[in-house]
Amino acid sequence: MSDIHYPSGVRPISELPRKSEAKKKRNLKIAAGNRGMDFETEINLTNDYYKELGLALFTKRPTPINVVKVDYSHGPKITEAYFEAQSTTDYNGVYKGRYVDFEAKSVHSKTSFPLSNIPKQQIDHLKNVLRLRGVGFFLIRFASLNVVYFLPAQYVISFYEEKPRSSIPLSEIQKNGSLVSMAYRPRYDFLPFVDALLK
Amino acid sequence: MSDIHYPSGVRPISELPRKSEAKKKRNLKIAAGNRGMDFETEINLTNDYYKELGLALFTKRPTPINVVKVDYSHGPKITEAYFEAQSTTDYNGVYKGRYVDFEAKSVHSKTSFPLSNIPKQQIDHLKNVLRLRGVGFFLIRFASLNVVYFLPAQYVISFYEEKPRSSIPLSEIQKNGSLVSMAYRPRYDFLPFVDALLK
Repeated sequence: MSDIHYPSGVRPISELPRKSEAKKKRNLKIAAGNRGMDFETEINLTNDYYKELGLALFTKRPTPINVVKVDYSHGPKITEAYFEAQSTTDYNGVYKGRYVDFEAKSVHSKTSFPLSNIPKQQIDHLKNVLRLRGVGFFLIRFASLNVVYFLPAQYVISFYEEKPRSSIPLSEIQKNGSLVSMAYRPRYDFLPFVDALLK
Repeated sequence: MSDIHYPSGVRPISELPRKSEAKKKRNLKIAAGNRGMDFETEINLTNDYYKELGLALFTKRPTPINVVKVDYSHGPKITEAYFEAQSTTDYNGVYKGRYVDFEAKSVHSKTSFPLSNIPKQQIDHLKNVLRLRGVGFFLIRFASLNVVYFLPAQYVISFYEEKPRSSIPLSEIQKNGSLVSMAYRPRYDFLPFVDALLK
């Protein structure tokens, strides 16, 4: 494991996403107005790292797109389509034979995580996952503070359903979650917290 | 469990896919020239059934689409995009806490399953899944015979790598796989075979 810290924005060639991925990223960036996209890239790099080491396999579900028109004159080219909301979480995969499901969110607030960031269908999805003994969690990035927390889905679901407030205070996240260490590789080492949930 | 058999093509309202799903299906049908799409719908209905009963949660990964141009003049509208190959399998999810991953293929041959139906990245993906103690399998439909077989990923991977032939003979599939029973609900009852793999 390297502890070299590259200046922000600089990455060795081996770390660069493949061409088509880079393309996708660029396009998604345009679509989502750049919010939280760097976070997504970092999580994908973390997942690549876990995969290379044979530790875990987590994949990102593609963004669902509703295709309306396709032009077949020069091979299938989509000419009208719309982004749709993910009805599940963004990531899932396998670790030690177990099913793992998580969502990553980046927020600008320095003091709390607004629940409005979580669509109800993600809560429903994670409830089903936990009921079936899968592991579920959130990775929450406070962009302005440059910190990432690991928060078990069970806690988020309870807070969401009891709704004592419309956002989870950072102090509560610190109490019920774990600060994820950041480095060059893996970017965010969240696997130890998955281990803790499995115990 | 109902044993009502609806005439082909007729479904009660409760069974109809939601509007956006129906739309997606229609569009994908256009894109994929109708091949195997009914099979996909039936598997989605099976997964819905398992989910409703709280037995298992399997979701289909959206088709990856490379978005090139987006028009923002009236909200984001994609005006140029291309279908991409899935780099994993189409389905994954959780059963009894375990990670489950599978691919569904429909073929026209009456005698064998051509390996050309399986991209190498799906084999690589399933090898990683098995290495991490996930459960992996294929659902193979012989459309002309109207039968579906459950075939463990381990067997398909071995055949793919040793490649004694460029397609798996039906007789071998019958010997190494299991015939999936078909009914109204669930359409294809493959969960007992997942259970067998877990043991």
